Amino acid sequence: MSAVMSKTMKALSRHDILARMLRPGSIAIVGASSQLSKVNGRPLKHLLEKGYPGRIYPVNPKYQEIAGLTCYPSVDALPEAPDLAVVVVPAQEVATSLIALGKKGARAAVVFSSGFGETGEHGLANEHMLRDIAREYGMVVCGPNCLGFINAFEQVYATFSQYADGDVDSGPVGFVTQSGAFGTAIAALARDRGLGLGYFVNTGNEADATFCELMHVVVEDPRISVVAGYLEGIRDGESLINLARRCHALGKPLVLVKVGRTTSGARAASSHTGALAVEDALFDSVARQYGILRAGNEEQLLDMVQALSGCALPAGNGLGIVTQSGGAGVMMTDRAEELGMTVPAPQAETSVALAAVMPAFGSSGNPVDVTGQFVAEPQLLRDAVLLLLADARVHVGIIWIQLMHAHADMLVDLLAEIRARTDTPFLICWVAAPSGMARRLREKGVVMFGAGERAVEAAAALSRYAVIREAWACPEHEMRDPPPAHLALKDGPVPTVEAVALLSRAGVTMAPVVLAKNAGQAVQAWRQFSAPVALKIESPDILHKTDISGVVLNLNDAADIQSAFDSLMDRSHARVPEAKLLGVIVQPMQAGDIELVVGIKRDNVFGAMVMVGYGGIFLETLRDVVFRRAPFTEREARSMLAEMRMRPILDGVRGRPGADIDKLCSLLSRLSYWAASVASQLAELDLNPLLIDSDGPVGVDSIMIIRTKT
Amino acid sequence: MSAVMSKTMKALSRHDILARMLRPGSIAIVGASSQLSKVNGRPLKHLLEKGYPGRIYPVNPKYQEIAGLTCYPSVDALPEAPDLAVVVVPAQEVATSLIALGKKGARAAVVFSSGFGETGEHGLANEHMLRDIAREYGMVVCGPNCLGFINAFEQVYATFSQYADGDVDSGPVGFVTQSGAFGTAIAALARDRGLGLGYFVNTGNEADATFCELMHVVVEDPRISVVAGYLEGIRDGESLINLARRCHALGKPLVLVKVGRTTSGARAASSHTGALAVEDALFDSVARQYGILRAGNEEQLLDMVQALSGCALPAGNGLGIVTQSGGAGVMMTDRAEELGMTVPAPQAETSVALAAVMPAFGSSGNPVDVTGQFVAEPQLLRDAVLLLLADARVHVGIIWIQLMHAHADMLVDLLAEIRARTDTPFLICWVAAPSGMARRLREKGVVMFGAGERAVEAAAALSRYAVIREAWACPEHEMRDPPPAHLALKDGPVPTVEAVALLSRAGVTMAPVVLAKNAGQAVQAWRQFSAPVALKIESPDILHKTDISGVVLNLNDAADIQSAFDSLMDRSHARVPEAKLLGVIVQPMQAGDIELVVGIKRDNVFGAMVMVGYGGIFLETLRDVVFRRAPFTEREARSMLAEMRMRPILDGVRGRPGADIDKLCSLLSRLSYWAASVASQLAELDLNPLLIDSDGPVGVDSIMIIRTKT
Repeated sequence: MSAVMSKTMKALSRHDILARMLRPGSIAIVGASSQLSKVNGRPLKHLLEKGYPGRIYPVNPKYQEIAGLTCYPSVDALPEAPDLAVVVVPAQEVATSLIALGKKGARAAVVFSSGFGETGEHGLANEHMLRDIAREYGMVVCGPNCLGFINAFEQVYATFSQYADGDVDSGPVGFVTQSGAFGTAIAALARDRGLGLGYFVNTGNEADATFCELMHVVVEDPRISVVAGYLEGIRDGESLINLARRCHALGKPLVLVKVGRTTSGARAASSHTGALAVEDALFDSVARQYGILRAGNEEQLLDMVQALSGCALPAGNGLGIVTQSGGAGVMMTDRAEELGMTVPAPQAETSVALAAVMPAFGSSGNPVDVTGQFVAEPQLLRDAVLLLLADARVHVGIIWIQLMHAHADMLVDLLAEIRARTDTPFLICWVAAPSGMARRLREKGVVMFGAGERAVEAAAALSRYAVIREAWACPEHEMRDPPPAHLALKDGPVPTVEAVALLSRAGVTMAPVVLAKNAGQAVQAWRQFSAPVALKIESPDILHKTDISGVVLNLNDAADIQSAFDSLMDRSHARVPEAKLLGVIVQPMQAGDIELVVGIKRDNVFGAMVMVGYGGIFLETLRDVVFRRAPFTEREARSMLAEMRMRPILDGVRGRPGADIDKLCSLLSRLSYWAASVASQLAELDLNPLLIDSDGPVGVDSIMIIRTKT
Repeated sequence: MSAVMSKTMKALSRHDILARMLRPGSIAIVGASSQLSKVNGRPLKHLLEKGYPGRIYPVNPKYQEIAGLTCYPSVDALPEAPDLAVVVVPAQEVATSLIALGKKGARAAVVFSSGFGETGEHGLANEHMLRDIAREYGMVVCGPNCLGFINAFEQVYATFSQYADGDVDSGPVGFVTQSGAFGTAIAALARDRGLGLGYFVNTGNEADATFCELMHVVVEDPRISVVAGYLEGIRDGESLINLARRCHALGKPLVLVKVGRTTSGARAASSHTGALAVEDALFDSVARQYGILRAGNEEQLLDMVQALSGCALPAGNGLGIVTQSGGAGVMMTDRAEELGMTVPAPQAETSVALAAVMPAFGSSGNPVDVTGQFVAEPQLLRDAVLLLLADARVHVGIIWIQLMHAHADMLVDLLAEIRARTDTPFLICWVAAPSGMARRLREKGVVMFGAGERAVEAAAALSRYAVIREAWACPEHEMRDPPPAHLALKDGPVPTVEAVALLSRAGVTMAPVVLAKNAGQAVQAWRQFSAPVALKIESPDILHKTDISGVVLNLNDAADIQSAFDSLMDRSHARVPEAKLLGVIVQPMQAGDIELVVGIKRDNVFGAMVMVGYGGIFLETLRDVVFRRAPFTEREARSMLAEMRMRPILDGVRGRPGADIDKLCSLLSRLSYWAASVASQLAELDLNPLLIDSDGPVGVDSIMIIRTKT
């Protein structure tokens, strides 16, 4: 390798190195075996069998030749620095191999070997060593404990996954998985559906190269139109968000399945917001906010990918259904409405035209039931579908059929004809279809599912993605990160008066507060407010004041206030003897028709997250809370409110006053901007309650915790 | 046919006739064709090909012989009255054929012909005529517009369903479907899974024989262990309930899929209860109450049936999971917990034993991750599974594997060995399995699914059914219908004073009321109550008093009461000039911490249904309401409350008082008993609010509507 070349390589970014790793001109297999069915033999077997066109260098001192190829005794002996090294040596030899590769000038390695972080502390330390070696030599390392990857376009089979055992069609889907076993199963299911995976990448322990980095490279390939991923956990939220942004810029959907839905939020938290901010809820909010399509399981993932990679996007959420079973039509209509789609009545002219082609015993609304009659008259199905899909109210169609083994060829031709004659996207649901039908139809550009509800869910995903794409085409969709602001506060709970001042400056209307250090000051504050007041104990050691009866409400008399002050101080001292008591907060009583909770929680993965929820006694029972990553626009705040189950209450029900939605959105967006600017210091905030009255939202109580990020 | 025989036949019940229909000694095919691939040729083709052992009589004046069988020119010319007649003549000839069959002494017919109720008014009239003919001749008629049925045990193929085209294995599952097309698809899907259907019955338009009647006959067959059904609608709720009871008596699960989930409740209703009592919500409650397993779609139906027909019932809800993918384990654990199962940590001795057999890099908790290592050491999987299933906390197991095409035979043997060595039920999830694996495993007594979440859902269904079975084994589980009581009331809204008296007698504590016809009476009533009172306009024409500002609260002064009386009368007259004003109801103000709604709605299908829900402004927003069919026990009332999302509020949250659950259950059960006794008169009742305070529930306002059932 020339010095010039070496210089060029040095200048490459990690992204460029990963791109070359996925499309290498040469591959070394360090630890290659002549037993081609073994883990360390299979990459070579696949590369040879599938016809990888680049240079292959087995490395193993035990052999001089494997499968007709020269086998090199060491990395050092290689004739060039390979674009990719596949490392299949025992765990304890991996570091040595990586160092040798680094010295040789190799820039990318995939490590299959297991026995690292997944085995415990000791293994994790060794894994960190691999990362350090990679950094030292400017290499990228994929794995360890991974199955490797496939680039099916260029016949790169740097893997021992069972998925490579069968035919691997290249296609427009890029798939990256953190799990080898589950990922292999998903890839095999994709193959069963005739879905070609252009890339299959397993990231394993991610000592160095991460899921997001690899996905980032895959999505840049112009032959890829949809990227799909399987996640078990993410360490760097920012990189996921940047990946999502890049996918939107390229106009390619990102579909993820992430396990760990009910992961408990048992991390210590001082605020309600903190307790409600369970890991998966945050991931889910971020996915929604950044337009990532989240699938609940592997089947949903593939359903979505199938539709998104095989269909145009619908221009709306109107679903047209043609069936040969009334009941299937009802079932699909139900599911569509549950998912926010409409199944609109056709326009008058469509109905007239449908009635002209439909048999007497069919229905000509929507769903259209062509009955079994279409077997005798295939044009019936074709005409009904084309008429319904031409209706302006219908943006995506589903055709439901079943069995028809004797008429499979006719149906394939008919569906292909429909495909050619309409621009409106449509999906087939073919229940108990003859085998191989999904694949045959896919070759004709027609997407097929085996169950009606799944077809509807896929259609809904198409509509949802169309809306996402439109939103992300608008440049004001996102708010950019604000410059960091510094709060002159030390770690710990912020005293109420300072917290109120800060929040007021951040744009939240707060009920006024005065700290009274003695009863006289409390009475004086009440006189100044000239309104009934609440007294609340103030102490950095007492965050949940009501839990220790540290609040007295509705006082409007000097004597009462004096005695309340004294009893609050006495009681607090009795209940929490070690608490430092700063005095009592005096606050005019607040009225409100609706009680919300707004909060902030700094998450290790995603940074400052803002929550809004329905408060009072319903907070824990209903958990009607919605999160967004800060900062966000008022438009995004509006979508938060739309997700609340209690949203109708905010609009006013049964003649009761609702909330000023504009003011609320403005508050949430401004607070999110502030949250992002102080994220390095602010750990948690509860505004509980935020009362909504006719003048808008007013924050009453707050808990604010500073914990400077190290 | 001898006169004696005929007499015996006459004495048969409909049930007996249907049983004979499903197992006929002779079959006539009226309208048989010699073209065996046509609708009217296919029953004969199937009967011959599948080897039906009884006598077959084609009837058609056009032929003398079909497929070697004598063809009779008319029904009259038949040598005997057939046990079953398959009628495949044009719609307009069906009545004539049925009359001829009736005269001949035939007692059962299946009518394939379409062109009846499904085509509109005229067709429906003709359908009623078929029913009348059937009644006149003491026949049972299945159909019209149906695909017929299959009894696979006795090779009875009285059908033209495509399902009969392939191999039809008999098996322990009885399947009855109202839809022909969808039902055929479901049957074919069952076959793909290796599930043998002993019976496949399509009921079509149900002019005479109903879904429940046919299911009733099927479930009595001792060769059947599970019955499954597809429903589009039910007309006679009582028969469904009796079917469910019979299934429990036989210890056979009844699994139903019913389409029409979001069917709107747009039927005119005077009460909130009426408006909330949408058809599908009632069906769902009845299913829950009577231990019917309801599936959401065809795939769930078959998943449940597969597990229930292939597995023993678990003795609890502890799930043990063995996987080769950590992520799959997490995903299944999540789903299990969502469905109310536990995934318990193994007992100490199990953990020790597992650690002894597990490789260093696997996990030995629950889920147990055996990793890919088990391919090299198959006994690893076997030992891990047997150890986990032997744990007392584990009541049902799931084994998750993927692909393994090269090791399929080994795995089948291994799983069969596990099956033989444990009594604990377990399911296999084999993702991307080699084809035909589900069927091969089923032959070994092992139930297999293709996706983890589906296996979990099936395991949860097994646990749920085990609980149902236990509950139904207890004789006090159900309350028996009370004798009818007569209310001396005319149709229409019941005046408040009478309604309160009635409800008090029925066991509901009601806030006292007095009807004041003038202001003086109102003041007098207030003096007697010696408490602040509410005044509410009383008129049979004003049901929702607050809508017209017909309520004034919290009056505690004679002058105020006088003026409130006058203004209520004036305002009501002004707002609803045509309303007959009876005066004003005076009622002491009621306090309560929790606001519930309790109601009754007489449903056309299921009779009196009782509702309890969380009231106030949350009623319509949350729709947190639960229904049960009256009458029901306190135990059932307890299960209603357990289904409420707001249930934690009833238990008391954040130090607030909860409700006396025992008193509430007693109220609901007593009210349900009363509702059942007056169901022929009572159409609707709202108790809204039912306030819960420290003394128990108190009904405040009520709307009661009498509409005598005709």
